[in-house]
Amino acid sequence: MFDPLQTVTHDITIRRATRADLQSIVDMLADDPLGATREAAGPPADPVYLAAFEAIDSDPNQFLAVVENDTAVIGVLQLTFIPGLSRKGLWRGQIESVRVHKSARSLGLGQQLFDWAIAECRARGCGLVQLTTDRARDDAHRFYDRLGFKATHLGYKLGL
Amino acid sequence: MFDPLQTVTHDITIRRATRADLQSIVDMLADDPLGATREAAGPPADPVYLAAFEAIDSDPNQFLAVVENDTAVIGVLQLTFIPGLSRKGLWRGQIESVRVHKSARSLGLGQQLFDWAIAECRARGCGLVQLTTDRARDDAHRFYDRLGFKATHLGYKLGL
Repeated sequence: MFDPLQTVTHDITIRRATRADLQSIVDMLADDPLGATREAAGPPADPVYLAAFEAIDSDPNQFLAVVENDTAVIGVLQLTFIPGLSRKGLWRGQIESVRVHKSARSLGLGQQLFDWAIAECRARGCGLVQLTTDRARDDAHRFYDRLGFKATHLGYKLGL
Repeated sequence: MFDPLQTVTHDITIRRATRADLQSIVDMLADDPLGATREAAGPPADPVYLAAFEAIDSDPNQFLAVVENDTAVIGVLQLTFIPGLSRKGLWRGQIESVRVHKSARSLGLGQQLFDWAIAECRARGCGLVQLTTDRARDDAHRFYDRLGFKATHLGYKLGL
């Protein structure tokens, strides 16, 4: 359905995450002003992350992608492909859990990662790419605006 | 994992949608100020809806629910269960395509439907329920506020 291995400019590879990437991914999720309060990165990472990884990896409508350079995993993004009836049966590509390692920020990797994700959504037949971002992430808002996303919606959450 | 048939107050049944419900669902999606411009309700409904229904129905992480009373289908809501690494491997329940038939509005059915959906998310082990709603849907914002949802996020969309 899609090519799990794509090399883009900047000498990086974007590929499907494996179990061996888990600690690197959790480290990046935790190394963030909001993530720091929510994660239990370890090492060792909390075993709940392995269960979550398995759930993602076994679902054909999930694509957990990592970015790596010669030496390390330096980015992560989760794509979810969602079928729906609305908008004439439109499939949506949803983006979640985007992080670029602090050592690799401001180099345009976020842009490359999103270019890849948007192309992947198109290849899967999605008619829309969507994401929500915390109102506090001003830098992220500017980034998504620049990519052509429109903040047409409000994102509501209810903790259980 | 969950009980597909639950009767709640108000003499309604909330159950998994079947193919026979498709025209009723599409009619409700189209009978809406925003939906009217996006759907091709027919009858006959555009065949793209049947393909979308099959994709939803065959995915164990999707639950397309309808509300019916003695005589007709009067509501619809799609639940998507999304595994993720963020927030210690939290599962999210995502709500999309919510409609109550115009003949049945302002009777508290929306509240019953959401009570059901939130309970379903809890039963599936989700730690968060999330949805986005168009900024133009003021009535919906008041409704979600009342249910305890917090509009902490911005919802970005990119049409492909």
